[in-house]
Amino acid sequence: MSTPRVVNLAEKFGAFTEQWSPRIVGDLNGQEVRLARIGGEFVWHAHKDADELFLVVKGVLRMGLRDGDRVVNEGEFLIVPRGVEHKPAAETAEVWMLMVEPAGTLNTGTAGGERTVAELERL
Amino acid sequence: MSTPRVVNLAEKFGAFTEQWSPRIVGDLNGQEVRLARIGGEFVWHAHKDADELFLVVKGVLRMGLRDGDRVVNEGEFLIVPRGVEHKPAAETAEVWMLMVEPAGTLNTGTAGGERTVAELERL
Repeated sequence: MSTPRVVNLAEKFGAFTEQWSPRIVGDLNGQEVRLARIGGEFVWHAHKDADELFLVVKGVLRMGLRDGDRVVNEGEFLIVPRGVEHKPAAETAEVWMLMVEPAGTLNTGTAGGERTVAELERL
Repeated sequence: MSTPRVVNLAEKFGAFTEQWSPRIVGDLNGQEVRLARIGGEFVWHAHKDADELFLVVKGVLRMGLRDGDRVVNEGEFLIVPRGVEHKPAAETAEVWMLMVEPAGTLNTGTAGGERTVAELERL
């Protein structure tokens, strides 16, 4: 068991620039806390066994859902339940978001493809 | 399965004033997302089977740990692993924090006592 550390979100976001490549910054109860910088659109995908939380730290996230988009502003979060198709997109030039999801969840879910990041870095 | 909803943190914090009585605002993968307003000090306690994440939304949290306090500012988070004794305290007049922990986790853990909230409200 490691010593509990305080994680400063702005500092961690400042430690990388790559978009669509989440960094792991914490672990609890089999879940990972991830930080992602995104711009433009991602691909439609779903996760069979993973609910995903998206908390917007900066910018505006537009989450495409088959029953209509959700606009998620700074200081707001959205939980996408397992099995629900979604397509994250940045409504602003860039979005910083904190995610919580089961350890090992693939960013592209069951869709796979070239935008899959097989192994996430830790910060 | 309910329809994904956008949760605005400021709006939810504005919907209650009671301190040390977390509200549940989301569920994912067996975890609950809770919002708590705190002032003053809580009691030393630990959770046998629950890691707890504390993200400070407003104010300054001082988390007492046996190996030294951690000061958690706005925009920072701390994960307290299961079994680790801790005592949350507000360094500012009030602190707003977002917590993630397993569903059903008692706020006072194994310490129990009069500050236990048996059933958390949902917002």
